[in-house]
Amino acid sequence: MSDDERVRETNDRFYAAMNALDIEEMDKVWFDDAEAICVHPGREAILGYESIRESWMMIFSATDSMMIASTGEVITVAGDVAWVVCLETISIMTEEGLAAAAAQATNIFRRRGAGWRMVVHHASPVPLTPQDEWPDVIN
Amino acid sequence: MSDDERVRETNDRFYAAMNALDIEEMDKVWFDDAEAICVHPGREAILGYESIRESWMMIFSATDSMMIASTGEVITVAGDVAWVVCLETISIMTEEGLAAAAAQATNIFRRRGAGWRMVVHHASPVPLTPQDEWPDVIN
Repeated sequence: MSDDERVRETNDRFYAAMNALDIEEMDKVWFDDAEAICVHPGREAILGYESIRESWMMIFSATDSMMIASTGEVITVAGDVAWVVCLETISIMTEEGLAAAAAQATNIFRRRGAGWRMVVHHASPVPLTPQDEWPDVIN
Repeated sequence: MSDDERVRETNDRFYAAMNALDIEEMDKVWFDDAEAICVHPGREAILGYESIRESWMMIFSATDSMMIASTGEVITVAGDVAWVVCLETISIMTEEGLAAAAAQATNIFRRRGAGWRMVVHHASPVPLTPQDEWPDVIN
């Protein structure tokens, strides 16, 4: 497997952990270190994996189900660092009902042994295209 | 000068180029390559420096003056790649009046020769604290 493929696989596992609301899978993806940084959409940065982990536990406990998909990944590998820029589409079922959102993400990974670990996740909201403005081919 | 200091200096020059609305200074900061990626607040990613440069020219031409400051920089250097996570505070004077905003930024740099070049800029909006909620020490 090439570095590109391994990075893509780790990025996919990150979104799989979110879909599964599974904190232990999240632990396996992240660089478990004080230098890890996470920016949830519309928020300031959370520093250090200990605090990042708490934020995921809060999100998971407040969420009945989550469907998140990553598309359009642009992957760059530079030695022992790699980054993926991708678009996230998100549907979340909460006690208050169904919410949909899109986010632009930058994910940075560091090589660890034969694999890669996420060291930065930065997601920021982007406007959703309203359904009546979808391309004709879909409607 | 240490790598940390050089990266900080390059990050500072990026914000100085914005403050000066100076596209040539911007050119000196960026990794002038198809792999460069820029995410302006609330937008999808722009791929490649050619398109990124156009976006800065549009922003600069629509702006009478801009005051942008970077604070709370967290700098990580890993070989020939480095990233800075920082908070941006922005005041922009446009034809429609004064606008203020805050953004969370992740900036990735690659080493080139003795210096560093920006290869990813991702800025995302964060809520401003209304003035009447500022800490007592300021009010």
